[in-house]
Amino acid sequence: MSQKKNVIVVGGGFGGINAVKSLSKNPDLDITLIDRRNHHLFQPLLYQVAMAALSPAEIAVPIRSIFSGYRNVDIVMGNVLGVNFDKKLVQTKFRDFQYDYLVLACGAMNCYFGNVGWEGFAPGLKSLEEAIEIRRRVLTAFEKADREEDPEKQKQLLTFVVVGGGPTGIELAGALGEISRYTLSRDFRHIDSRRTRIILIEAGERILPSFSPELSGKASRGLEKLGVTIWTKTKVTGIDQEGVTLKNERILAKTVLWAAGIGPADLNEKLSVELGSQNRIRVNSDLTIPGQSNVFVIGDQAYFVENGNALPGLAPVAIQQGKFVAKNIFADMKQKPRKPFKYLDKGIMATIGRADAIVQFAGMKLNGFIAWAIWLFVHIFYLIGFRNRMIIIFQWGWSYLTFRRGARIITIRGWKPLLKANARKKSVPSRKKTAAKKK
Amino acid sequence: MSQKKNVIVVGGGFGGINAVKSLSKNPDLDITLIDRRNHHLFQPLLYQVAMAALSPAEIAVPIRSIFSGYRNVDIVMGNVLGVNFDKKLVQTKFRDFQYDYLVLACGAMNCYFGNVGWEGFAPGLKSLEEAIEIRRRVLTAFEKADREEDPEKQKQLLTFVVVGGGPTGIELAGALGEISRYTLSRDFRHIDSRRTRIILIEAGERILPSFSPELSGKASRGLEKLGVTIWTKTKVTGIDQEGVTLKNERILAKTVLWAAGIGPADLNEKLSVELGSQNRIRVNSDLTIPGQSNVFVIGDQAYFVENGNALPGLAPVAIQQGKFVAKNIFADMKQKPRKPFKYLDKGIMATIGRADAIVQFAGMKLNGFIAWAIWLFVHIFYLIGFRNRMIIIFQWGWSYLTFRRGARIITIRGWKPLLKANARKKSVPSRKKTAAKKK
Repeated sequence: MSQKKNVIVVGGGFGGINAVKSLSKNPDLDITLIDRRNHHLFQPLLYQVAMAALSPAEIAVPIRSIFSGYRNVDIVMGNVLGVNFDKKLVQTKFRDFQYDYLVLACGAMNCYFGNVGWEGFAPGLKSLEEAIEIRRRVLTAFEKADREEDPEKQKQLLTFVVVGGGPTGIELAGALGEISRYTLSRDFRHIDSRRTRIILIEAGERILPSFSPELSGKASRGLEKLGVTIWTKTKVTGIDQEGVTLKNERILAKTVLWAAGIGPADLNEKLSVELGSQNRIRVNSDLTIPGQSNVFVIGDQAYFVENGNALPGLAPVAIQQGKFVAKNIFADMKQKPRKPFKYLDKGIMATIGRADAIVQFAGMKLNGFIAWAIWLFVHIFYLIGFRNRMIIIFQWGWSYLTFRRGARIITIRGWKPLLKANARKKSVPSRKKTAAKKK
Repeated sequence: MSQKKNVIVVGGGFGGINAVKSLSKNPDLDITLIDRRNHHLFQPLLYQVAMAALSPAEIAVPIRSIFSGYRNVDIVMGNVLGVNFDKKLVQTKFRDFQYDYLVLACGAMNCYFGNVGWEGFAPGLKSLEEAIEIRRRVLTAFEKADREEDPEKQKQLLTFVVVGGGPTGIELAGALGEISRYTLSRDFRHIDSRRTRIILIEAGERILPSFSPELSGKASRGLEKLGVTIWTKTKVTGIDQEGVTLKNERILAKTVLWAAGIGPADLNEKLSVELGSQNRIRVNSDLTIPGQSNVFVIGDQAYFVENGNALPGLAPVAIQQGKFVAKNIFADMKQKPRKPFKYLDKGIMATIGRADAIVQFAGMKLNGFIAWAIWLFVHIFYLIGFRNRMIIIFQWGWSYLTFRRGARIITIRGWKPLLKANARKKSVPSRKKTAAKKK
């Protein structure tokens, strides 16, 4: 009788979920998935939450309900603080978890290149909370502009800066163009939302550098049609409450969104392991950490070099790596040799706006409606397994037909007791606003 | 040529929205609707957001989009700080608004009967933010219970107390019963969610005192079937981080929800006007404030006595009063006499759980499935005008068929910058948790 092995998977993103799904097929494994959130996020559509087209629950699904009824899968909501490789322990605030195999799939965070203070003024787009915060800022800017009487301040409220010309930056800028040109155009009496300024700033030569120059050009023209101004070869040197500084220039803008860099998960620097660029964890060809043959790192958290290039932080990479790790653990259990990971390139795509996208796959380059249709098909296909795919399709159909956006709800940041505490002031302090608001 | 009149409506609830819709039919009126939120809330279904069955955007609709294209309606998002009756000005932080007619429809807030400190430990259910906070607490309690090893603490995490046996308390307690008995029953490995304790505390003789004793009894039995324990004639004397105190008794419970009282809108005490019970504003038979013939108060904010009883805080009252105010303003403009308001009783209803409700209307008393079908029909009917009624029906159909709840998402309370500030610590302080969490 073979002894049961404990596998701990940290992180319920594309990599972690796929690892657990594959691992669970082997009844000799007891799998524990630890995540600090209770939900798996369909990250490719997160910008749609930030831009009020979808609701948070439409792209998020409770991890527990994904694995409801899986007998050998346990879900723990908690924050992993560290790993003791010698004792094979994953450490959390409330308990240590013993592992035979460990799969790290913690993903990545926003990176501000050391400019820590910028985050409060320019949120990135990695979590639902950030998406909701961006939605709040964008919608509130229009509300404030409408009631503002000073034309200079109004202009500042109607100026949106997106920093970073990768796919996320493109999607945010394009969606801002759509909202201001179409969705909101009849809703305000004191502003013309179609005159909103949207500036996309990219430090490099051109936007979307991972695509061919031709497709990158098509994307630029698509964005310009939506009213987005693109500034390439432009470096942001400062961000504050009032706008963005570019060396000697200054853009007054109340809303700045950050899509310029991703950095390591919290955990990476706490583990004494070798890090590659962006502080991702350097892994062997079988995705293990050098010297730790039972610890795998996958997805955005891993720095895996193939043909001289590090694999990018894409969902297909994480999905394939998650499934691959399970295969190698199964091989171990059958005492067969492990295999090296090979990435099967699924191509890259980015959506620009209403019925416009670019797709690059195996030498094929597509743009416009056909590319958008492929984008839509792929995203709906991958959403299968999500209970709410029908609702999303319905929602999209609705918003593409009507130019409306269903989730234009501003909720106040962070619930707190409303009543003023007097005698008991100490027991219910009202939280201070962040510096971003106070300054 | 008649001169245009300014009408200011404060509050975008049922009363305010219906007042504006009716008023807008008269092109001689310029109407400004001021609300501190950007959305109208379908409050009767708010408990479904708190209980993870619906997403916030499914019961909220941007006020602007309701009145998109209405030429004589202007929407302002802002907090009304006061009213200067002499100068006919509505005061906000950013501007004063002049009115010829003023309609106050600010609704009501939770009331803790002077126990200000309780709110942090026992949130009420009046806004989307509160609903999201309740959802977070309820779902997090199950997560923490599952990973808790001390059986006493586990029991405390799996004890839910609902204070208040009115319709909101019933709906919350019933939904908690459903979640724990059905939705979550297969999702946890270390707890049996079906053993969750749900205690409903009511100070009076029986729950749902506005219904007949017979229906109130049926509701009690329905709740008991869902595992809810009902304690009547029980007064809460203390609420803290660890539970609830009842004179000499103590219930250890990590989650306490407040549905025991509603109180006045912020504004009421700032206006020097006569207040009725619950500090609602006492109004004349035409809904005006005594001495202010051009200032109307409607809905939960108004204290209107009919046949010796104050009208309750129900949607049908607010809707009828909103429409009625418009008629009287139209009468003024034609120099015809105003009429007194008469409430057309639409009956009362409360839902207990899956396919169970009670309805009392014109001497008719219904319960069980038939009452629930009526409840459902009425709510879907009133949702018409909401763009998302189709999605709600779809969502409900889905969750009633599968016992699942689609919106089981825990978001962290209040976005804040994640990165640790070092040198620039001052500029981005991480917010402190409330005392409720720290203690």
